[in-house]
Amino acid sequence: MLLLKNEKLRSMYRTHTCGELRSTNINQEITLAGWVQTIRKFGSITFIDLRDRYGITQLLIGEELNALLNENPLGREFVLQVKGIVSERSSKNANIPTGDIEIKVKSFSVLNKSITPPFTVQDDTDGGDDLRMKFRYLDLRRNEVKKNLELRYSVNRAARNYLHENNFMDIETPFLIKSTPEGARDFVVPSRMNAGQFYALPQSPQTFKQLLMVSGYDRYYQIVKCFRDEDLRADRQPEFTQIDCEMSFVEQEDILNMFEGMIKSIFKQVKGIDYAEKVGRMTWEDAMWNYGNDKPDIRFDMKIANLKSAFKKDGEIIATGELINGAGFGVFDNAETVVAIAVPNCSEYTRKQIDELTDWVKRPQVGMNGMVNIKCNVDGSFKSSVDKFYDEEKLKAIASFANAKAGDLILILAGTEERTRKAISDLRLELGQRLGFRKKDELKLLWVLDFPLFEYAEEDNRWVARHHPFTAPKPDHISVMIDNDPLIENAAEYLKHPYANIKANAYDMVLNGNEIGGGSIRIFQRELQEKMFTALGMSKEEALHKFGFLLGAFEYGAPPHGGIAFGFDRLCSILGGSESIRDFIAFPKNNSGRDVMLDAPSTIDEKQLKELSIQLNVQ
Amino acid sequence: MLLLKNEKLRSMYRTHTCGELRSTNINQEITLAGWVQTIRKFGSITFIDLRDRYGITQLLIGEELNALLNENPLGREFVLQVKGIVSERSSKNANIPTGDIEIKVKSFSVLNKSITPPFTVQDDTDGGDDLRMKFRYLDLRRNEVKKNLELRYSVNRAARNYLHENNFMDIETPFLIKSTPEGARDFVVPSRMNAGQFYALPQSPQTFKQLLMVSGYDRYYQIVKCFRDEDLRADRQPEFTQIDCEMSFVEQEDILNMFEGMIKSIFKQVKGIDYAEKVGRMTWEDAMWNYGNDKPDIRFDMKIANLKSAFKKDGEIIATGELINGAGFGVFDNAETVVAIAVPNCSEYTRKQIDELTDWVKRPQVGMNGMVNIKCNVDGSFKSSVDKFYDEEKLKAIASFANAKAGDLILILAGTEERTRKAISDLRLELGQRLGFRKKDELKLLWVLDFPLFEYAEEDNRWVARHHPFTAPKPDHISVMIDNDPLIENAAEYLKHPYANIKANAYDMVLNGNEIGGGSIRIFQRELQEKMFTALGMSKEEALHKFGFLLGAFEYGAPPHGGIAFGFDRLCSILGGSESIRDFIAFPKNNSGRDVMLDAPSTIDEKQLKELSIQLNVQ
Repeated sequence: MLLLKNEKLRSMYRTHTCGELRSTNINQEITLAGWVQTIRKFGSITFIDLRDRYGITQLLIGEELNALLNENPLGREFVLQVKGIVSERSSKNANIPTGDIEIKVKSFSVLNKSITPPFTVQDDTDGGDDLRMKFRYLDLRRNEVKKNLELRYSVNRAARNYLHENNFMDIETPFLIKSTPEGARDFVVPSRMNAGQFYALPQSPQTFKQLLMVSGYDRYYQIVKCFRDEDLRADRQPEFTQIDCEMSFVEQEDILNMFEGMIKSIFKQVKGIDYAEKVGRMTWEDAMWNYGNDKPDIRFDMKIANLKSAFKKDGEIIATGELINGAGFGVFDNAETVVAIAVPNCSEYTRKQIDELTDWVKRPQVGMNGMVNIKCNVDGSFKSSVDKFYDEEKLKAIASFANAKAGDLILILAGTEERTRKAISDLRLELGQRLGFRKKDELKLLWVLDFPLFEYAEEDNRWVARHHPFTAPKPDHISVMIDNDPLIENAAEYLKHPYANIKANAYDMVLNGNEIGGGSIRIFQRELQEKMFTALGMSKEEALHKFGFLLGAFEYGAPPHGGIAFGFDRLCSILGGSESIRDFIAFPKNNSGRDVMLDAPSTIDEKQLKELSIQLNVQ
Repeated sequence: MLLLKNEKLRSMYRTHTCGELRSTNINQEITLAGWVQTIRKFGSITFIDLRDRYGITQLLIGEELNALLNENPLGREFVLQVKGIVSERSSKNANIPTGDIEIKVKSFSVLNKSITPPFTVQDDTDGGDDLRMKFRYLDLRRNEVKKNLELRYSVNRAARNYLHENNFMDIETPFLIKSTPEGARDFVVPSRMNAGQFYALPQSPQTFKQLLMVSGYDRYYQIVKCFRDEDLRADRQPEFTQIDCEMSFVEQEDILNMFEGMIKSIFKQVKGIDYAEKVGRMTWEDAMWNYGNDKPDIRFDMKIANLKSAFKKDGEIIATGELINGAGFGVFDNAETVVAIAVPNCSEYTRKQIDELTDWVKRPQVGMNGMVNIKCNVDGSFKSSVDKFYDEEKLKAIASFANAKAGDLILILAGTEERTRKAISDLRLELGQRLGFRKKDELKLLWVLDFPLFEYAEEDNRWVARHHPFTAPKPDHISVMIDNDPLIENAAEYLKHPYANIKANAYDMVLNGNEIGGGSIRIFQRELQEKMFTALGMSKEEALHKFGFLLGAFEYGAPPHGGIAFGFDRLCSILGGSESIRDFIAFPKNNSGRDVMLDAPSTIDEKQLKELSIQLNVQ
């Protein structure tokens, strides 16, 4: 990360940084500036570790300066400038690059003092989360956090370099745009000059990048802040950063190749990792079928066996439960969905261990009523919690269907489709974690393809866009969309509506079970875009009011185009081996959307409100 | 600008771009995709110029496809994909890189149609400003605009490369911050989750970059959007982009060297210009004295001669008017300021020409009551519009003082200090323009230094920060600031207050008479920062409420630091040889702050207002 072009780091305050002096510099007269990391007194001499961004250098303050030091006692985090001679250390420190030398200080001056920090500025700090956020400027001094921001910068740099080499152009799109709430809420900005009117902050530069394609810019990118006014779940931020890209005259295959290249290039430039293998591809249906979610962690196997399912695969509802139905076990008979995983080499789990897992799936976050297990004993026999309904032969058949080997433990969940599928997915990930299958240092990429274009919204009995309204259907599904009425006449049978089978020309990039990027080939024909707006329940007037500029642009020769956006914060946090994106943002907000350091948001003056032609309406 | 790494530009839609085929490609079978620029029919064959971002290629559609062409008539801006054979042209076009070849089309397909654009998509468009802004996506297709955005990207890239090589780190600062209106108005964002409270959009990342220095990041940069809710003068935008930088352990000299290096590197990388000479430096006083403004265009001389002035230079009011006073010419006798310029080789201007110039200075934008002239005839004699007050000897003395040569025309303005100084500066620039002294292709940099730290605000009889409240005084003026009470007891004599003489440790970079960057060494001591807030009339409570986090940070070992911000839009427009920054912004706003393409700002739903706990209050 560090570019040690030392000459460039010289300034009026220093001849060198605290990270660069070596034994080759011995006897040189130098000047350093930095922070006091530690002070150690030994009789009449004092050792100080002086820190700056680039490293730590040991200072030796001898007897002759001791009086001065007593007059001006130093403390941790004081800012010092010292002049002295580089000398060989008597006891070398092999742990730091400057460990062979120390500075015999000839003179020093205190550039600034420090009161005692509210927590220790060290890797293992004693500061709690709230305190560290309030004093973020001190937290940012910790090596841990600094490393994260350096990694973030190097990801930024690597992405830009790759995109530049591939002829992408960074084009800035506006931040004060029009509010077109669609899915997430917009942050809005009252306009003083246009009383009663509001700008919105962009949730993404989506329509602008499409316009740039219409304008012929061919390849666009931006590393750009986006804004969503959502209730913040843990690890969401109201402002977040995207690597936002768009290309013209491309099909899905072009995008997959280009951005698989980008991520590999980032791995290489940032982590030195050669990710040589082609990134795997999986359809959304297979992901849901085999892993229970649309961003499978494929660092480990443990695929789901669908014993019974209402989930539609290849256009049909399959897995109707031949293996388990009719044995008199009501829980399975009455369930919409019954799913199993075979946990490797866990057949000897104790009653206590299994009870603990059962409690785990019963927690409200998972929400199951219970869990059935089948132990595939090493000796080839089977033992199950539902022995009384299923004989050995049936257990064997189920085990075989679940790809269980002797020694595995089969866990089975039953219930409604969506919740059960999510629960088995959670259980799989939890066990993967516990069993050490999810290795931090293993990076495993996956493309998930062929998402449904629409999702069914029960409350309004209509279709909503799964990705966004600009995503194109698969080429051979376009006519299905054009030729059919989006109206759902029989809500109970929405799955039979032709729209339920339309696949999107969309793709997500998944890294270690996290969606790090997603995009699509876009609609570029006015007629199809209008049909899409209609399908989403938007009137012609509303569509024109919100997206008239885009519909207009499509009339003047819009090229086929598509793109992708990567969640920059998340990508950095995974590459940095952390669970939390906050650790990779210099000044993050807390879960109430507050910056506790600034104390923002805050009230504003009556005068400001008046100028903006608004007033408060707090209930 | 273009990176012709052709292999990388291939896609499922094209084997090559419209800019790359040469005679070496003759006989190859290729596929192109792009826009129809022109169609020329010659009997049964048709020539089409196909355009994409990379260039233009001529297509030849022969007789055999003519029927197809008649069935599917093409039009301008249609999007085509063609397959064909690269062939040698019979009449070559030396003006374009692909001019040696054409494509014998074997098949084509229309990817999208276009209705007739509302203006011609060409360099000399017939579209007016409003129309082009409404259809910005078409305007952006014009080569002229595309060149500007390409230049912008290359400036972006050059700046980043230079800063990266010098160990600066791009660190993103937040957009949803706290409103601390100081000078310009903030745009604010109502917080839904914190009812009655507001975020503000940053006018600059000023305090954040200072905190990053306190955190030890040593060298920071960002190319970042900033926001100011000001009444828009021509060529101002509510959102604009800065190259924002900060360094620790530096003095002014370090910053000047570093960023003079950056600009020179941009000149070199973007324009191929070697700007070898050291950038000149001028004090603010000298700039005001000799050029009448703080961003002198030094591409030409024509310095101002101060015949009489109330302007304080070197701490004293000088030029008290010995040369002109007491001659009975009331206009000069009663004026606060009398200033002259010698216009080279214009002594033979006619009455009409001089009247026209007099009218020019009488326009309300300049606001003078009249203009006096002295013709320094080639024969050594003088002729003046105020002959009756000043004899030949006096005219000669004035001419000598104004550095006029035989053949020059001296123009003299008189009036109140501020207006007259601005007027002579405007007149100097106007004449420089008319006489061809301000050459577009000549780039002339200048550092302006030693600005006053404070300006006097008459309405409140108090001091305001000339730059911003974080700018440090010159080191030897710190004690003047600490030791004196900022209170101005006698408003009429504010110039005698010690604060009037405090110089800021600040610097502006000027390019061809435009301020392209400005910055300062910052205050880094809590005590001095508090004194500054007091000097600006802020109570202790207000200072803590607004900037408590910064004052707090200064207590934990803040290093000496300073920085600079460049106006990215302006820098690009000057390098692009344009007067208008709007030409260098992909989606600019008009002078009412509106995006006419989007029709933003606009009204929002009652539901949105309610969720945000605000209501309209339009008078």
